[in-house]
Parts: sequence; C-alpha cells; structure tokens
Amino acid sequence: MRAQRWTVGIDFGGTNIKCGLVNARGRVRRSLVLSAARFGAPQAFLDGATEAIRALVNDEGLSLRRLVGVGVGAPGLIDVRRGLVHRLVNVRGWHHVPLADRLRRRLGVPVFVDNDVNVVALGEWRFGAGRGTRHLICLTLGTGVGGGLMFDGCLYRGHDGAAGELGHLVIDPTGRRCGCGRRGCLESLVGAAGIVALAREKLRHGTGPLTVLTRRARGRLSPRLVGQAARERDARAKAVWAEVGRRLGVALANLVNALNPERIVIGGGVANNWSLFYPALITTLRREAMAGPPRHVRVVRARLGDDAGIVGGAVLVWSESQGRRMR
Amino acid sequence: MRAQRWTVGIDFGGTNIKCGLVNARGRVRRSLVLSAARFGAPQAFLDGATEAIRALVNDEGLSLRRLVGVGVGAPGLIDVRRGLVHRLVNVRGWHHVPLADRLRRRLGVPVFVDNDVNVVALGEWRFGAGRGTRHLICLTLGTGVGGGLMFDGCLYRGHDGAAGELGHLVIDPTGRRCGCGRRGCLESLVGAAGIVALAREKLRHGTGPLTVLTRRARGRLSPRLVGQAARERDARAKAVWAEVGRRLGVALANLVNALNPERIVIGGGVANNWSLFYPALITTLRREAMAGPPRHVRVVRARLGDDAGIVGGAVLVWSESQGRRMR
Repeated sequence: MRAQRWTVGIDFGGTNIKCGLVNARGRVRRSLVLSAARFGAPQAFLDGATEAIRALVNDEGLSLRRLVGVGVGAPGLIDVRRGLVHRLVNVRGWHHVPLADRLRRRLGVPVFVDNDVNVVALGEWRFGAGRGTRHLICLTLGTGVGGGLMFDGCLYRGHDGAAGELGHLVIDPTGRRCGCGRRGCLESLVGAAGIVALAREKLRHGTGPLTVLTRRARGRLSPRLVGQAARERDARAKAVWAEVGRRLGVALANLVNALNPERIVIGGGVANNWSLFYPALITTLRREAMAGPPRHVRVVRARLGDDAGIVGGAVLVWSESQGRRMR
Repeated sequence: MRAQRWTVGIDFGGTNIKCGLVNARGRVRRSLVLSAARFGAPQAFLDGATEAIRALVNDEGLSLRRLVGVGVGAPGLIDVRRGLVHRLVNVRGWHHVPLADRLRRRLGVPVFVDNDVNVVALGEWRFGAGRGTRHLICLTLGTGVGGGLMFDGCLYRGHDGAAGELGHLVIDPTGRRCGCGRRGCLESLVGAAGIVALAREKLRHGTGPLTVLTRRARGRLSPRLVGQAARERDARAKAVWAEVGRRLGVALANLVNALNPERIVIGGGVANNWSLFYPALITTLRREAMAGPPRHVRVVRARLGDDAGIVGGAVLVWSESQGRRMR
C-alpha cells in the first residue's frame, strides 16, 4: 500500500472560502471555512489560507511535509501553468496575482490553481458521478452556469485556459439578454435570474403555492422558492422547471452532437431541483440530439455536493503533479 | 535523414474515390481517381483500391513493403479502433464492414479508416492551414457541413467516435428544417441547400446578375452560381454571403466559448467564396464571443484543397501507427 497522499483543497467562493484536508481516497477529513468578505483580497487570502492549512494539518497530527500539495479552485480566469490569477469574478483586488508562487513560498509545498468549475469537474470525474469515464462534460447550475470538460481522461482547458464557458452558449437568439451582452445564452435562460424571470411570468396568471410563498418572501423569488412551490404541487412552478429542463436539453443536444461525451454531470445549487427538471431535460435531449449512440449519453446528478470544490482541489494537485495526466 | 515514409491516402467521396501516394512531407506524388458509381460498393471498392494502390506504388518504382500504411477517409460512422465502417452516407452496401482488416489482408500493410472530416482535419493540422497548433477546429462547408476537432495535438473522436458533428449545432431554433429533423441546424442554414434557399428568397425582389445567371442555369441555383453573381456585383447575392458569414460567426462564437480553440480552419467547396462571407463572419464572431483572449482566435481558409482527404489519409496512418499520438 502506498503512503497516505494528503492534500489540501481550497474552494474559493464569492461568499465562503472552504479549506479541507483530503485523504488519498478523496475524503474530506477536516475542513475550515473563512469568510470571503474578510479573507477575499489577495494579501488577506494568503494569510488566512496559510493559517487554515497549518491548522488543518496540525489538528490531524501531520506536518506540512506530508502534503503532496495544495489545490485552489477560484471563480475567474486563471493561467494554470503559471499558477496566475488573471482576474476573479465577484472578488476584488485580483489582477494578475501569482497565487501559486506566493502560497508555495509560505508553505513550502506545491500549489496549483484552476478555475472553480474545472476543479469541480476534476473532483466529480475522479471521486463523484463521473468516475470511470474518459469523456465527461460537467455543468454547474447556480447564479451563473459553468462548465468543465474532460477529454481522454484529461481536463481540457483550451488555448488560453478559458475553455468550458458553457453558460455562454446561445440557445435562443431571441431569448433574454445575458450579463455578457448577448441574447439567449444558457446562463440567462437557466441561471438563477432566468428561472426567477420564468417564475415571475407565471405569477401573473392564476394563484397557488408559488403566489403564497412569494408573498411570504416579500417578493424575493429564488430557484429554491420555485422548487418548493413545485414540490407543493403548484402547476405553474412545475411548468417553470419543465421549461428549464427543455432549455438544458437543447443545450446538451448541441454539446452531444459536437463532443459525443460518455457522461454528463450536472451540479450546483439549482441541481437540487433535479427531479423537477430532469424528465423534460432527458426527453428533449434524446429527441434533439442526432440519431445514433451519442444521444443515449447518461446525464447524472453531481455527487460530491458542497465538498466538490475541496475534493476537486485535491484532484488538481494529483493530476498536475503527475505531469498533467492521470487516468 | 530518416528513410522515406510513403503512405497511400484514400479520399472516399460520394462521386469520386481519390487515391494518392504521399511522401513524408505530405506531398501527393501520384494519384488516381476511381468512380464511386462503379467502385463504391464494398467488394468493388476493395478490388479497385487494391489495384489502384499497386499501380501507384509500381509507377513510383516502389514495392508495397515500402508503405507505412494506407489511410482511408470515408463519409459515415466509423469505428476507428477496429477499422470498421458502420455505415456510409450516400454510398450503399456498407453495413458493419471490417474495411481495415480486409484491405490489410490483401495488401499486407496496415490500414486505418476514419470519418472523412476527421481525416481532413488531420491533414490541415499537419500540413495545411492548422500547422503548428495544438487546439484546432476544422469546419467543412459543402452539401453537408462537417467538423473535426484536434485537442492537445490529438484528434478528438468522443465516446462513440461520433464527435465533431458541427453541422448539427442548432443556431436558430426558428430556422429552416434540417435533414436531421430539427430546425436551424448550422447545416440547414449554411450548407448548399441553405445558401440556395437564401438566394431564392432574394430572387423575388429586384433583378441583376443573380437573376440572369439563374435563368441561364434553368433555375438550378447553387452556391457556386450565387458566388459568381456576387462577384458580378449583384447586391442580393452579396447579401446572401453576408448572411452566411453572420450565421457562421454565431456558430463559431459558441464553439469559441465552449472550446477556446487556437485556430479555426474552414474548408470544403463553399469556402471558395471566402472573401464573400469572411468579413461578416469575423465581425460577428468577435462581437458574439465572450470578451477575452479566446475571441481573437484566427479563422483561416483551408489550404490543402482537393488533396486534403488524401494527405489527411496519410497523416491518419502516421498518427495511428505511432500509438495514436503525434505532436
């Protein structure tokens, strides 16, 4: 048996910075959460992460030397090869910060940084719902919609490290305006704002749990609330989720035609409403993708939940420190 | 200097079967054309190809033993690993034919088979407009619209060998009905039939070279004719090509967002009208793709022309016989 290959994964989110000590089987043994409001800026992040990593390692009775490395997933444009954060979305102060180098100098262990959705894809591929596949598409649904691509058992990052922006596939040129400026991007249609917009539309007609819940929340609609209304049998809320499923099905059909993946994993907070949108998604996908074996691709729900970013950070360390290849 | 690495590439088209002897520099030294009407069926193809290959080798003063192998590109669903042709488009009689094995037994040299557009992508990547890139998208425009993807210097075939069906990306759900049954596939919008449909629409209004040329051709519109009319300054024909460029730009923007390629190569007969559609294509692409480095991807015209299938067949031999990897 090989020695324990401990790693630390860091999931750098807009609200929380989650740090976890991960064992060789991809289990999070200990974790700590830092507030992004306090530790989000580069210097504070370096201080906070260094202290958190030391604490995690000490509490487990290990030393830093036992770590294979630290893997960070952050929401933004990252140069993985150089460990450079070009910029982050929703976090200030990050402009071309050589994060990997700086953190490595403090800790004395290798540090790797990648885009958060890429990191989630790595985690799900190695220890979650994508296990055992060679060609995997990972989609995350939340406020934003992101994607990670695994081809031939490797994360595919593209020429500038920006591949996988699946939230910005246009699926309906006449659809809602997206934050990126175009109309009908997948993110504008099935991201949180898109789901809320669909629900507001429905609220105009009839009444039911969706109306009651919305009033109780003082008009603050959210995908979670629309999910609750659907589970309370509001027909309009159910129709919202069916439409979300159809839209996802159309987008996935295009991806299946272009990329013929072995499996598609869908995660993120909005995926908690899986049973509400999956039936329409899979019906649409099977109908819209070209006839042939690719259209029978399995579409499954992510399995790692809130730990995906931490576990993915650990997988990033293993895959990058093994010459960028791990099968 | 290494010994000459001769190969034979075969471009199996719906009209012609082109066979060529290719040297180590990717130059076609000799070639022969067989009629698909006569040599298209499996048995006739095996007979015809065997004889053609012997003739090419003899005429060059070589023996079959000097061949590294034979590479065949054919329009259909192919199992590359097993050298099996599942079915061909527009050619009868091909149902699960173990083409590579049968031809190998006759010739005594390795034989590899792949989808025709994949083979073109390999050719353009190694010796044509995609030279020196690691991440390449190759698009072919003709009666059909096809795609080939090179990721990390390898052809990407997907889980069932069906990746790259870029003609069946839906870019306008309200658009023309495609042969595949859906609406607004790229192929239905910028394939030959889509271009002709655009031109017919335009013919209803006004008059000019497009009207004259169409009459002279007894109503038989074709992309070539619409190209000629545009070169003769017919404003309507020019507008057709601008629309083709915009549609391509929208499709490529999605591909750029998802895949962040280093370069995009466009070939096929319709690409002969390059200067007529490129300006609208590149303007649309730069505007529609997400802000950032990926949108500045170079989009170039294929360089190998009619030889692309033959040269690509040769590259298929080299890449497959070198453990499926060649950089």
